[in-house]
Order: sequence, then C-alpha cells, then structure tokens
Amino acid sequence: MDILVVGSVALDSIRTPFGEAEEVLGGSATFFSIAASLFNKVGIVAVVGDDFPQRHVEFLESHNVDLRGLKRVPGRTFRWEGYYDYDLNEAHTIDTQLNVFDTFDPEIPEEYRDAEYVFLANIDPELQLKVLKQVRAPRLTICDTMNYWIGNKREQLLETISQVDYLLLNDAEARELAREPNLITAGRKLLEMGPEKVIIKKGEHGVIMLGKDQFFSLPAYPLDTVFDPTGAGDTFGGGFLGSLSRYPEMSGDQIRRSIVYGSVVASYVVESFSCDRLARLSNDDVEERYREFLNMTCF
Amino acid sequence: MDILVVGSVALDSIRTPFGEAEEVLGGSATFFSIAASLFNKVGIVAVVGDDFPQRHVEFLESHNVDLRGLKRVPGRTFRWEGYYDYDLNEAHTIDTQLNVFDTFDPEIPEEYRDAEYVFLANIDPELQLKVLKQVRAPRLTICDTMNYWIGNKREQLLETISQVDYLLLNDAEARELAREPNLITAGRKLLEMGPEKVIIKKGEHGVIMLGKDQFFSLPAYPLDTVFDPTGAGDTFGGGFLGSLSRYPEMSGDQIRRSIVYGSVVASYVVESFSCDRLARLSNDDVEERYREFLNMTCF
Repeated sequence: MDILVVGSVALDSIRTPFGEAEEVLGGSATFFSIAASLFNKVGIVAVVGDDFPQRHVEFLESHNVDLRGLKRVPGRTFRWEGYYDYDLNEAHTIDTQLNVFDTFDPEIPEEYRDAEYVFLANIDPELQLKVLKQVRAPRLTICDTMNYWIGNKREQLLETISQVDYLLLNDAEARELAREPNLITAGRKLLEMGPEKVIIKKGEHGVIMLGKDQFFSLPAYPLDTVFDPTGAGDTFGGGFLGSLSRYPEMSGDQIRRSIVYGSVVASYVVESFSCDRLARLSNDDVEERYREFLNMTCF
Repeated sequence: MDILVVGSVALDSIRTPFGEAEEVLGGSATFFSIAASLFNKVGIVAVVGDDFPQRHVEFLESHNVDLRGLKRVPGRTFRWEGYYDYDLNEAHTIDTQLNVFDTFDPEIPEEYRDAEYVFLANIDPELQLKVLKQVRAPRLTICDTMNYWIGNKREQLLETISQVDYLLLNDAEARELAREPNLITAGRKLLEMGPEKVIIKKGEHGVIMLGKDQFFSLPAYPLDTVFDPTGAGDTFGGGFLGSLSRYPEMSGDQIRRSIVYGSVVASYVVESFSCDRLARLSNDDVEERYREFLNMTCF
C-alpha cells in the first residue's frame, strides 16, 4: 500500500438544484480513496457504524481500496445532510450527526505504517497529529482542514501544519487561517507556518499552488452543469496525491501535472451524486480531459 | 489611427482600504486608450466639460492618444465617486454625476471612420449602434456593457451585440444578460446572440474566452495588493485590442496571446490610482509579466 488516507466515511443526504439523494456514500476518505485508486494503491483509516451498508464496503473493495483500517463499531455511521443553491460553491448544512465518528481515534494498522504518502483529510488536528506519530517515514504528508478547526483548535492545527509537507485547503479557509483577505498574501502567510507547499482550492475558479519562489495557477474545467459539488475537494486531493505518487521524483513539473490530474478527477466527480461518475471513470476519460486542460490553457 | 474607442472620460473620487484619491482621471475611454496606446495608435470619441483640467489633456496627448474626437462642451465633466471594501471585486457607488455625459451623442470625426478596430466601451447601447452606423468597414468591433443597460435597455443591447464581432463583459453581467447562473452555460448562450467570441472578465479569477468549439481560460496575475481596481476591465480591453491589432491575422493563437497582454496591462493598472502605474509602464515591464504568466500557467 502506497497511500494512506485518514478521514471520514459517511452517509450523505443531499439536495441540489438538479436532484436529491438520500444516504449515499460520502465522506472525505471515501472520495479521496476512490480518486487515488485510479493511480495507485490506497488504504483507508476511518470508522463506520454497524448500520453501514455492505454494498458500500464491496464498492470500495471493488476499487482496490484497502479496508484493513476501516473500523466497524456498534452505533450509527456519520451522517451529513445538506443542500446547495445555484451558488454551488457554498454547502448549506441541515444536519450533522457525528455518531460513531464522534469518538474516532485513528489507530494505524501495522501494515499501513510504512505508507509512503499520507493524506490527513479534514479531521480534528489533534487526531491528525496522532496519525503523524504513528507513521514511520513517509515521503510526503499532506493535511486538509476546515473552518471549524480553524476557529476552535487553531493552536493544534498550527502544530499539525508545521509538521506536514503540503497544506491543502479552500480559499475561504486560507483567508480565515491566515487572517488576511488577499488570497495571495494569505497563501504566503500560510507558507510561513511551515509547509513546503500550499495548495488552495477555489472551486469553480480553479486552484493555485504556492511554494518558495514558486507559483502555479490552474483554472477549473468548464462545466455546464455542476450536478453536486460534494466531495470535489477530497477528490482533488486523491487525484493529486495518486498522480504524484507515481513519479519517482517530486519536482515542480510533477506537482503541476498532478494538480491537473486532481482537477480532472474533481471535474468528473461533480457530474453526479456520490462517487457515481468516479466509479465509471476510465483511464481514457482521465487522459482526454487532461488534454483538454492543456488545450484550454495554452497560449 | 488604427483603434477607435467610444466611451467616457471622467473625474473619479475613490476610497479603497489603501488610500483615497480625489477627482483623478478616469472613465472607460481613458483607461482603454492609455492601455491600447502601449501597442498601437488609438483615438478617443468622448465628451468633457469646460472644467476638464488641461493637464489631463496633455497627459493623454503625451501617450499619443488622438483627441480629435474628444469634445469639450459647456458644463461639468462626468464624475463618479465610490469606494471599495476588502472585497475589491465590488465597487460601491456613492455618487454618479453624468453632467455633460448625459447628452453625449457620439459623432465620429471623418478622420476616424476608417478605423480598423472599434471598441464600444460601456455606454448606452443606442449610442453604440449609432457608432456602428458611422464607421465604414472595421476589421473588428467589440462591445462592452454593464448591468444598468442589461436591466434598462435589453432590446437595444441585444441589437448591438448581434452586430459586433466580440462581446466583452464581466461575470456578473454575463450571468444577468444570459439569465443563467452557470457561467459556462451563460457564455454559450451569449454566443448564440450573435458575436463570434465572448470574453468574460472575472476580476481576481482571471478571464475566459468562448467561441464556436473554442475555450480558453487564463487565471489572473497573483497580486499581493490590489490598490484600486477601478478601470481594470477597460484596461484589459485596451491591452487586448491593442495587442490584437498588431497581428496581420486574428486566429485563436493571436487572440489567446492578446488576452494575456490585456491581463498583463490590467494587472499593472490596479497597482495605483487612476492611470498612474500605466503611465510609467515600459515595454520591458509588459514583456516581463507576460513571461511570468507563461511560467505560472504551464504544465
């Protein structure tokens, strides 16, 4: 197993201007792992309740996701209910039931501790730190986060950020964490917190990457319909790290190309609910949209 | 004279988080012409009052802007007063005094009627149509517009749009004019209104260009401080058309490169009030940032 992701596996109920879905497979670790599995072997550390449908287990297994780190405990699975209006950049939460996720304490199986690539999805930064203590010598660690942790566990989050290689977050989170309205200045401030690279996801406006004396900006793939944006950020993370893990080197070029692959995969996931479109994604689909990215950005 | 612009010449009073300026030179035709003058010969058709400072006339002349079409009439010059908060994408108007601009009726001087490139800046679409009737055989016509005309003179605006080659507008205007929240779908709907190309300015998120079976997306130049965004869109237009007018052909490649040049010049204008930064811009400055655009977008 090359890539380890620690995050949530959830059941989502979603309403968008284009339809509704009830208790479909969701969660950061889910989207990440399905996306990463397009490129490399990935294992999940997460928790579900005893109500978690067996068909979802089988679905993940059918995509070669290693589930030895997926704990099943008595109780109900994490549930999120929300909706999107026409401004699909903003999720409106109706209800969050942490359930078994409330006492999640990630224990990395022995077989996973030598993972080369570690993705700390958006969970409590104290748990992210616990994960970092358990892995032995990863080549690359990335952490994601969200406004809740920025507001409520800032110190612990800063500690995590100082220990990872790359920080991945969205534009609103970047501004909030850096306490700076200008996104470029915010990005530079985040770099000063320790990570070697800061990758800021801007939804329909694409993604930027900042490093020491480095800057890369990629627009988003032009989509006529964003059917459901849930999971786009985690899918980006999975596509990005999956792609990056295939290169022996991790220089600027490989990082840039992997940002494009992350964006390609994310552009597909939003075309349907849950992982429906991702599940049917072929290598040709991925390469075709990669070429479209090249074509729409070159001058 | 190669390029003709019809628009406003104004005196702007502006407050931003970084400072204040009173009665500085502004207006769509001003920003457009100073930007375009970096690339080619440009002439203005506009109106000012008898209070218009002579130093502004001299400033425009010093940039080789042809002022034979700038009418000076009794009364006060068009004045705009506004401010920006930290969200610099949105201008808040405090006061608009149309003054002599209220009865502006563009009369194209005989010497201008053979202009090859015509830019209809954001004015009443009925006046834009009048201009189109006066020019003889332009190679390329572009029109810009704003929410006021979309709301109040939709029919006349649609007539103008059906008669020009390119439509240039910002993202909010594109959504409003197309009556469609998704920007890509909006862009395609605008194409159906007649223009060969639709160019949508997205401020800090860059610019997209749509044509039949064509799509180009360019992120914005990363700026730590946007000092004053006033005029950025018109400056983009001037840099774009100025650059395009230098090519004997106008194929996809030339259009893409000209969009980059427009973005380069616009990235400079927002670094100071009015045309202060533009006025000091060297060819080297322009080419340097063009190379930075290449470097920050390639993969």
